[in-house]
Amino acid sequence: MKVIHYTDVPAESIEGLPGVTIRWCISDADGVPRFALRVFEVEPGHGSPRHAHWWEHEVYILAGTGVLWTPDGETPLRPGHAVFVPPDAEHQFRNTGDEVLRFICVVPVGI
Amino acid sequence: MKVIHYTDVPAESIEGLPGVTIRWCISDADGVPRFALRVFEVEPGHGSPRHAHWWEHEVYILAGTGVLWTPDGETPLRPGHAVFVPPDAEHQFRNTGDEVLRFICVVPVGI
Repeated sequence: MKVIHYTDVPAESIEGLPGVTIRWCISDADGVPRFALRVFEVEPGHGSPRHAHWWEHEVYILAGTGVLWTPDGETPLRPGHAVFVPPDAEHQFRNTGDEVLRFICVVPVGI
Repeated sequence: MKVIHYTDVPAESIEGLPGVTIRWCISDADGVPRFALRVFEVEPGHGSPRHAHWWEHEVYILAGTGVLWTPDGETPLRPGHAVFVPPDAEHQFRNTGDEVLRFICVVPVGI
């Protein structure tokens, strides 16, 4: 059993991704069998690259505004939106607002 | 790819659990390969029973206040808390505040 406030988890920067931090709130280190829960914070004007990978994302927007880009276009995001990015689907999350875009992103272990 | 606001997902009641609703924001119906993301809302004074099951929970508190009960005692919960309940661990979530307790709960598919 683990209870931790996300602000008590170190915000790690990500190589090649300025303006983006990740907090591994629940991860392999906790002995999770299947999936990990991370909190991302993206500064205004920043985002992830357009990319794809074998694992899915299940995302929930906590604060701020942004867009999800896919080859089909852009979808606006605000707090309360849940997003499923299937395995191998090209995608990009971008902060298009004036405040931090904060979201949960759940992924399988072993990525 | 799926983007949906949690308020656009039907809030289903749960047999035997008055004061608790569940919204399956991302689930088997969306073709997820490994895990599902639900939003629970618990009215003041309500909660889940003390119970255990083969699957883990990964929880994130969105609103309200409550406690996580385990055989080791109670831990207070507020927005921003992440909770890992391992497989087979006895647990209970309870709303101890005056407002709705809202949280994300991620579980493996096939439960």
